[in-house]
Amino acid sequence: MTPQLADLFEFLRFPSVSTDSRHAGDVRGCAGWLVAKLSAMGLGAELHDTPGHPVVVARNVHVPGRCTVLIYGHYDVQPVDPLALWTSAPFAPEIRDGKIWARGATDNKGQMLAHLLGVEQTLRDHGDLPVNLIFLFEGEEEIGSPNLAPFLVRHRDALRCDVIAISDTGMVAPGVPTLGYGLRGITCCEAVLRGPAGDLHSGLFGGAVANPATAIGRLIASLHDADGRVAIDGFYDQVRPLENWERRMWSQVPGVGDLEMLETTGCPGLFGEPGYTTAERIWARPTAEVNGLGGGYQGEGSKTVLPAEAFVKLSFRLVPDQDPQDIMAKVTCHLASHCPPGVTLEVTSGHDGKPYVTDPHSRYGRAAQAALRAVFGAEPVLIREGGSIPIVQTFREILGADSLLLGLALADAQIHAPNENFPVANFEAGIRLNQALLQHLASA
Amino acid sequence: MTPQLADLFEFLRFPSVSTDSRHAGDVRGCAGWLVAKLSAMGLGAELHDTPGHPVVVARNVHVPGRCTVLIYGHYDVQPVDPLALWTSAPFAPEIRDGKIWARGATDNKGQMLAHLLGVEQTLRDHGDLPVNLIFLFEGEEEIGSPNLAPFLVRHRDALRCDVIAISDTGMVAPGVPTLGYGLRGITCCEAVLRGPAGDLHSGLFGGAVANPATAIGRLIASLHDADGRVAIDGFYDQVRPLENWERRMWSQVPGVGDLEMLETTGCPGLFGEPGYTTAERIWARPTAEVNGLGGGYQGEGSKTVLPAEAFVKLSFRLVPDQDPQDIMAKVTCHLASHCPPGVTLEVTSGHDGKPYVTDPHSRYGRAAQAALRAVFGAEPVLIREGGSIPIVQTFREILGADSLLLGLALADAQIHAPNENFPVANFEAGIRLNQALLQHLASA
Repeated sequence: MTPQLADLFEFLRFPSVSTDSRHAGDVRGCAGWLVAKLSAMGLGAELHDTPGHPVVVARNVHVPGRCTVLIYGHYDVQPVDPLALWTSAPFAPEIRDGKIWARGATDNKGQMLAHLLGVEQTLRDHGDLPVNLIFLFEGEEEIGSPNLAPFLVRHRDALRCDVIAISDTGMVAPGVPTLGYGLRGITCCEAVLRGPAGDLHSGLFGGAVANPATAIGRLIASLHDADGRVAIDGFYDQVRPLENWERRMWSQVPGVGDLEMLETTGCPGLFGEPGYTTAERIWARPTAEVNGLGGGYQGEGSKTVLPAEAFVKLSFRLVPDQDPQDIMAKVTCHLASHCPPGVTLEVTSGHDGKPYVTDPHSRYGRAAQAALRAVFGAEPVLIREGGSIPIVQTFREILGADSLLLGLALADAQIHAPNENFPVANFEAGIRLNQALLQHLASA
Repeated sequence: MTPQLADLFEFLRFPSVSTDSRHAGDVRGCAGWLVAKLSAMGLGAELHDTPGHPVVVARNVHVPGRCTVLIYGHYDVQPVDPLALWTSAPFAPEIRDGKIWARGATDNKGQMLAHLLGVEQTLRDHGDLPVNLIFLFEGEEEIGSPNLAPFLVRHRDALRCDVIAISDTGMVAPGVPTLGYGLRGITCCEAVLRGPAGDLHSGLFGGAVANPATAIGRLIASLHDADGRVAIDGFYDQVRPLENWERRMWSQVPGVGDLEMLETTGCPGLFGEPGYTTAERIWARPTAEVNGLGGGYQGEGSKTVLPAEAFVKLSFRLVPDQDPQDIMAKVTCHLASHCPPGVTLEVTSGHDGKPYVTDPHSRYGRAAQAALRAVFGAEPVLIREGGSIPIVQTFREILGADSLLLGLALADAQIHAPNENFPVANFEAGIRLNQALLQHLASA
């Protein structure tokens, strides 16, 4: 095993699950490991406490006149359930079939560490970096970065930069260099419907009172029309139409066709908003999704109850120029006006983040394309991204800098799901990509 | 504590949960306790093995020319979850506020043991019974009595009787003698919708594939129209209309008005099929209910997945002359034709039982009314029942005898739910009712 892979394995062994308060110590331990690693590389590294999980910042000695590059990543990870579906334990990384298997392997520890190790390699080769570098690593990305924006405001001067680089997005197919220039936003909520004070016998009471589990089904069904369009009043009002050049380029991007999507997901068929291709549906159209629902009897066999309550966890992926707060107001209004009779509704809104889009043909965008071309030996494809990195829009608003999205995540990486993985080849390409990127940005 | 209450407490301590295979030994232990108790009373008692849980049969020495009465009950109980909502442990009976608190206190151990102890008292007082008695106690009522019908066929001659008495139904209000003459039937199934091979990231894939949790909501919503009528093709075809005398009598029955129903259930409002009163909706109209549903992330916070699958557990309460197999065929057809695109559907049907109705003014019906009148000192009300005791229809078909439903269960008994309870007064009245019933049937 290379020293780089050994570093990654150490990093992956921290169960840094930010949403689960029982793992707060593991998240902090992971941040401490980063500070030690960055310090050992000769960078000035600091752990900053926040009301939540720590932020880690590191920098070289800045030289006036050089391009200042901020590289962002996150060291927290998603929960691992259902644990039983993992082939190997999520926090005991293994290499099988040329891939690293662990929670966080792709999202985001593998991609993030590639940047860190690329910088280590440049320092080893040249004793210096061609740019002024700032590493900014947070531990709350998976819970919506609640403490990063205040941190940016407080440290605005220290974090001032010309451009931001992030590897936390997708690569359309193995070996195809991919530059992302847009992200979907997100807003989340949970709705609970309550009926009887406790579970009722479905024989003695069934027919006379509303069933919250039936009602949650009706509420969920109200979110879309039969064709799959979101049926919330005004939901699409602010959606920016696709540009013609985007539709043309995306129609030629490999890896996002219908056959690939069927193969990657294992779905019996595709389904989505009429009038758009699969890539367009994911990269440029908003969604309403049920992430979890439950109520009533969950065990083996049957239990003939009318459950006292039922819940649904919803998230909405947003595109420019939708605003998360405006959408959540419309969602809340929709849920209230579509709540079936005989039950009460409680809506709790969760984290959110704005969508993002920038120009991939800017000065720094062209430098990123040149670095991708050099490392992968092929023409980069320009895409948007279905996922959300809300902090990218926040960077623009607070630091005034745009972000280059240099994605190394493959479609079958199983991020947020059991058996997350990252090809060793992508990890090694990421280390080389960081070296090329800093050189190209230095002369941009 | 009276010896009768002590007997009941012993009986209630067996966790005889028939649906849970881990409790098979407890169910059997409970049957063994019954055989010992019945034998000690001087009856001939036998434990009969079945492919499932045992049947217990006991009898006195039969005398030609006497009326033969079969008294049926069940010693198995519903599961106890959610356990956290119980004030006292479900299998550690307690008396508080004049009520016995335990799983099975009302359904059916308390009501069943009242019959047994009434017989014990008659034997103690008179040394003999005025009728030929057969006790038939099963351990599979809560899972649909899968082995009782074959048992009845095999023992048809030994179980031949003139009339059957059962206390496993409702008493409309405390102290109001209640004779039931009808029961709803039931049929159950579980539907599972499957989409992707595993959970997917809702950003990377959301919009391009169907979400099984969204689809299960749409499937649930297809079961009813907005007013609460079941929307399955042909569902109401065989429903027998209410008789005018039934609507008149039920409009005067205490305890089943809208205010009582709101208070008993704690619901924010009532809801049901238009054109029917609360009593009519429960006693004479069929239902489609969601007993449980689930899918996707169940934990704290949010997890932005598209779940691989989602399930719903359904049950349908049926009324004369609906047939469970006909209804399940219509349900299966409905689910298949309303399954949203992009997911696969698997339906597993569960237990079922036919609805039942008889004439409360028959010879034995009048004897039962006389016994109720004598014990409670008030005119009995004649009702149907929302719950299901499928074996009642089976008794009629195999043994040729109708059943008297002498219910002692109050609306707030919490049967099938946490904090099940049974008033001590009802237990004691039940013991006296059995004594009066056997006397009145002897001269019917």
